[in-house]
Amino acid sequence: MSDRDTHDATVEGAASAPGTVYLVGSGPGDPELMTVKAKRLLSEADVVLHDKLPGPEILGQIPDEKREDVGKRAGGEWTPQEYTNHRMVELAREGKSVVRLKGGDPFVFGRGGEEMEHLADEEIPFEVVPGVTSAIAGAGVAGIPVTHRDHTSSVSFVTGHEDPTKAESAVDWEALAATGGTLVVLMGVGKLPKYAKALRDAGMDGETPVALVERATWPEMRVATGTLDTIVDVRDAAEIEPPAITVIGEVAATRDRVVDLLRNRTGELPTETADSEVTEE
Amino acid sequence: MSDRDTHDATVEGAASAPGTVYLVGSGPGDPELMTVKAKRLLSEADVVLHDKLPGPEILGQIPDEKREDVGKRAGGEWTPQEYTNHRMVELAREGKSVVRLKGGDPFVFGRGGEEMEHLADEEIPFEVVPGVTSAIAGAGVAGIPVTHRDHTSSVSFVTGHEDPTKAESAVDWEALAATGGTLVVLMGVGKLPKYAKALRDAGMDGETPVALVERATWPEMRVATGTLDTIVDVRDAAEIEPPAITVIGEVAATRDRVVDLLRNRTGELPTETADSEVTEE
Repeated sequence: MSDRDTHDATVEGAASAPGTVYLVGSGPGDPELMTVKAKRLLSEADVVLHDKLPGPEILGQIPDEKREDVGKRAGGEWTPQEYTNHRMVELAREGKSVVRLKGGDPFVFGRGGEEMEHLADEEIPFEVVPGVTSAIAGAGVAGIPVTHRDHTSSVSFVTGHEDPTKAESAVDWEALAATGGTLVVLMGVGKLPKYAKALRDAGMDGETPVALVERATWPEMRVATGTLDTIVDVRDAAEIEPPAITVIGEVAATRDRVVDLLRNRTGELPTETADSEVTEE
Repeated sequence: MSDRDTHDATVEGAASAPGTVYLVGSGPGDPELMTVKAKRLLSEADVVLHDKLPGPEILGQIPDEKREDVGKRAGGEWTPQEYTNHRMVELAREGKSVVRLKGGDPFVFGRGGEEMEHLADEEIPFEVVPGVTSAIAGAGVAGIPVTHRDHTSSVSFVTGHEDPTKAESAVDWEALAATGGTLVVLMGVGKLPKYAKALRDAGMDGETPVALVERATWPEMRVATGTLDTIVDVRDAAEIEPPAITVIGEVAATRDRVVDLLRNRTGELPTETADSEVTEE
């Protein structure tokens, strides 16, 4: 890391052993879908570094005095990622117990891998606390199993938000279509038209079921369903907005088969149905 | 479902509303990696239907009087899966609150999708409670991020234990290799030689890093690392046994870079190192 000496050597006189940094997944947003360990660490930590992704319900449970929002940082000298890396190390060297709280699982498209490497490079002890990823949970609570013995032998997760510095699309949609398995796109609301077309061009059937799950497990969760050919129109009609996951594959049709018996997380049936294709729950 | 009328109509006089069945993921094995909700439901449920996959630590926390092992069933008239389906419905019709506890996430290669469909067909209300999957967590706690901005834009999960009734391999290893993303094989210890060869034949570099994580997050967890070319020998030398996950891709090399600073779940460094390639933690 080129910035290790300049950015992280700012704490003077911290000669004692550094504190541990916990890279913690907060799950998809429902506080009850945090792990027991995540909940314990949130209460034990000296400082919780977070961005907006864990969602308002979970962030609302953390005492203000230990919360530090590293997602927004106006006028700083580093990018948000550089600042997060710097701040984790700085706090640990002060001997603090630090939770770096990340939405979902820390290692599913969350730059947790880079944060872990930075900690190791700076010789800060760390621990990884996996979480429930919205890629699986968002489908599941909507009545969609990402794998199913009758339909698919694999499931692939891909990000719709690619690193903008990469040349063209690093995602090989043709190969993903060829796997024949379920595809789940995270952060893929905006680029839906682009990858829906790429999958069609790769030979995927236009009738393939597709589901969009917005704010999975949050109180205002919504689900919209269609096919590869119709899903862009469905998205527009339902005004689906980020954060959402896109589930592509035969399993996405399971929802319609089971939804009448599916209780939501509060234990009640969905109370509002906007139309046949979109349900709030 | 051909068996619905014969198998599930055995409860007489159960005229009141059926109980709810909760399809609950128990996570990878560490009881602290259960969700808060799973833990609550285990204490509130009338009956917990389980097999061996949640692991001894979690099963040991469930009071004997509410535990029912549906994984082993000698001399029954149904397969274990048919029996589980039958038993969930039978108990719900008795008005009981039922937890169907599954290892990892209920919808990741666990036949949870089939169980959900059966409940819907039988008009039993149900709720899905996602869990932490070992496919992601097993890698994570070993210091391996399944995605990484520098290495991969996708991750695919596949089962090494295919439905034996399917003709040949339903898994398209060539397409999976072509994605260029991380591959995680669940239940793939026995068939490792077969799919390692399939991936080599599909053009994947023999130097591609591979890690095996046995009993991820259990107290006796072990990790062995190698390459696509060496991993079968590594497996044999380390005597890696199921349950284990196989992580294939550049991210698997991350472990060696970070492991010295990686604390295990008890907060202590690994105390025993069998050799340079296998570590217990």
